[in-house]
Amino acid sequence: MALIVQKYGGTSVANIEKIRNVAARIVETKEAGNDVVVVLSAMAGETDRLIQLAQSASDTPVEREFDALISTGEQVTVTLLAMILNKMGYKATSFLGYQFKILTDKSHTKARIIGIDTQKPMDALKKGHIVVAAGFQGVDNEGNITTLGRGGSDTSAVAIAAALKADYCEIFTDVDGVYTTDPNIYDKARKLKKITYEEMLELASAGAKVLQQRSVELAKIYEVPVYVRSSFTNDGGTLVTKEDKDMEKETVSGVTYDRDQAKITVVHVPDKPGIAARLFTPLSDQNIVVDMIIQNASVDAYTDLTFTVPRKDIRQCQAILEKVSEEIGAEAIQFDENISKVSIVGVGMKSHAGVASRMFAALASEGINILMISTSEIKISCVVESKYTELAVRVLHDAFGLEHKG
Amino acid sequence: MALIVQKYGGTSVANIEKIRNVAARIVETKEAGNDVVVVLSAMAGETDRLIQLAQSASDTPVEREFDALISTGEQVTVTLLAMILNKMGYKATSFLGYQFKILTDKSHTKARIIGIDTQKPMDALKKGHIVVAAGFQGVDNEGNITTLGRGGSDTSAVAIAAALKADYCEIFTDVDGVYTTDPNIYDKARKLKKITYEEMLELASAGAKVLQQRSVELAKIYEVPVYVRSSFTNDGGTLVTKEDKDMEKETVSGVTYDRDQAKITVVHVPDKPGIAARLFTPLSDQNIVVDMIIQNASVDAYTDLTFTVPRKDIRQCQAILEKVSEEIGAEAIQFDENISKVSIVGVGMKSHAGVASRMFAALASEGINILMISTSEIKISCVVESKYTELAVRVLHDAFGLEHKG
Repeated sequence: MALIVQKYGGTSVANIEKIRNVAARIVETKEAGNDVVVVLSAMAGETDRLIQLAQSASDTPVEREFDALISTGEQVTVTLLAMILNKMGYKATSFLGYQFKILTDKSHTKARIIGIDTQKPMDALKKGHIVVAAGFQGVDNEGNITTLGRGGSDTSAVAIAAALKADYCEIFTDVDGVYTTDPNIYDKARKLKKITYEEMLELASAGAKVLQQRSVELAKIYEVPVYVRSSFTNDGGTLVTKEDKDMEKETVSGVTYDRDQAKITVVHVPDKPGIAARLFTPLSDQNIVVDMIIQNASVDAYTDLTFTVPRKDIRQCQAILEKVSEEIGAEAIQFDENISKVSIVGVGMKSHAGVASRMFAALASEGINILMISTSEIKISCVVESKYTELAVRVLHDAFGLEHKG
Repeated sequence: MALIVQKYGGTSVANIEKIRNVAARIVETKEAGNDVVVVLSAMAGETDRLIQLAQSASDTPVEREFDALISTGEQVTVTLLAMILNKMGYKATSFLGYQFKILTDKSHTKARIIGIDTQKPMDALKKGHIVVAAGFQGVDNEGNITTLGRGGSDTSAVAIAAALKADYCEIFTDVDGVYTTDPNIYDKARKLKKITYEEMLELASAGAKVLQQRSVELAKIYEVPVYVRSSFTNDGGTLVTKEDKDMEKETVSGVTYDRDQAKITVVHVPDKPGIAARLFTPLSDQNIVVDMIIQNASVDAYTDLTFTVPRKDIRQCQAILEKVSEEIGAEAIQFDENISKVSIVGVGMKSHAGVASRMFAALASEGINILMISTSEIKISCVVESKYTELAVRVLHDAFGLEHKG
């Protein structure tokens, strides 16, 4: 008998019929002799509806009230699921954030979990109940409702699994696992049976949106095995886990891409200390996340600075940088929205030489020009013209033989 | 400077635009130098929508889950109002049942308030905040969400006013006060400036649906002055308060009617001890509320028993009574759904003789036959054929000169 945490996303609980399907799967797990803790998102679209409602009340809604409003979405799904399970003859109890309780800090809309009280849910499990917990929400030490940010239910699930020392956590979603690349772009994409936490983190930061990044960080810290599975099939999914010897054999596990970036070049900047700070500080002050940064070799004490930012922030960047560039004496600013970031990820890179050169050669073979490069221990990213995105993904998938491994 | 509790019903907060109007009225009260505690219902129709959702999940939804589900309706309106007030430049904080906290017993869907913690709301008021409390909901001593039954927000408001020792409680609704009779039936109906708690209770039990009965009972016990006012006008409304000398001058304050009753006669029952109990116990076991009961004078040790029940329960009564009447040897059971109850209410009746005979004479003058009569200290009710309802109301309104008094 195992203790299993199952998390179902918004598309899996989009209406009563789908919640019934979820209930059937939960009952199956329960009947197999397991203790089950379920974590739910709001019905697909409901959180957006509530956000719009908030925005029609105020263009700058108070965050405390905003959190209390949008947390009703999960309150609806957990109570409905508990009703359905009870109707099917199973004892089930819903737990809201304050009831569980999921204690967080006071950072409304992006709160971080600081502790989970396991007393009440453990009592319920001992009495044979299925525990149905509202994802996404928590409570601060004064009883105010907080939320964990978009995709926060993944984090709720992993944190609950860690706190309850669950055997594993299953994340049921609308895809059936983690693929070597996006199957919509390349039909040779292959579902991975296993992937490391580190690789999953790099995939997420490189644009793959299977799991919320923080949930993977938590899973890594507490070594919670996480299965990414489809709620619409019985497929085994992908296990996200710590590195083992098998995994080192694979140099590259996946190819991913991010179309939501834009490239900015500040041309002919005086190359002296403090320039980078003067350029990037006003951006970070506005919560604009700068990703890749490249500085050209200095010529005659002048240099060019190139970096990427989320494409949605490009107008705001323009306003800020036009002001700053004048102050620091830059010659010009160039903006390029027609770019994509293509990345390869794999723990095996650490111990295999020549991965980068194989990547560059593969792109060159198709005449794809590399505009920027950045590397981490287990990831190499290249910025290319956006029209080459799909082609780059396919050629890299082939170059590292991802179709056949695993 | 006063402490004022204002309660707004579902039609007053039906959408963002209406919530803005509510906010404007609250700000007006606040700007006049008062401390304001607001109690809100869910948006009109929302509670029904949530109930339907529950029923589509289970035909017998677990009550604990049902309460947690439907309480989201008020959670939405209080957070939206708090956002709007903040946007207008006023500090405002929403309080859910568990945050306030409104402690109730464990009777889900019809919980009774057993205590209210005033610490947090008083702290908020001291800091100049407008307190926005979710009506209808409470919390039991284990943190489970409870609800107070239909119209429960009135009770929330009066209970909060009593706990905070507010100067008075204003109930904003879609009518602008309590009338001498239903203005839809008689255009000579006159709005009352004042009415006693006792009269209000009798009016509510006789079919007038302005305030939830329990809220009036609470107001009476804690002597909370309650104003019934329209949220769409600036009219002063009706004050529900304790009896004073002025009021005794008026014999009758109002005429009301109830079309939702049906009459049942059990014919030729042996007139011996225990018969009434055998007849009415199975009805009360099914939560069927028997209102008026009349037993004819016994003839040859046999009698007829006539009583009224809510019309919606008539089929259930039939099933129960057909079984019982056989056991007790009754000759027949007669059902009559074509009846109405017409009542006059007034504290002045206690000290004025001849009110009943004036009522009977007035009905007789229009040829309206009285089928049943029941009296209390401050109310006389007559059952008449339902086709005479409006006529009876008008003739009684005229007979007691209600158009001109006050």
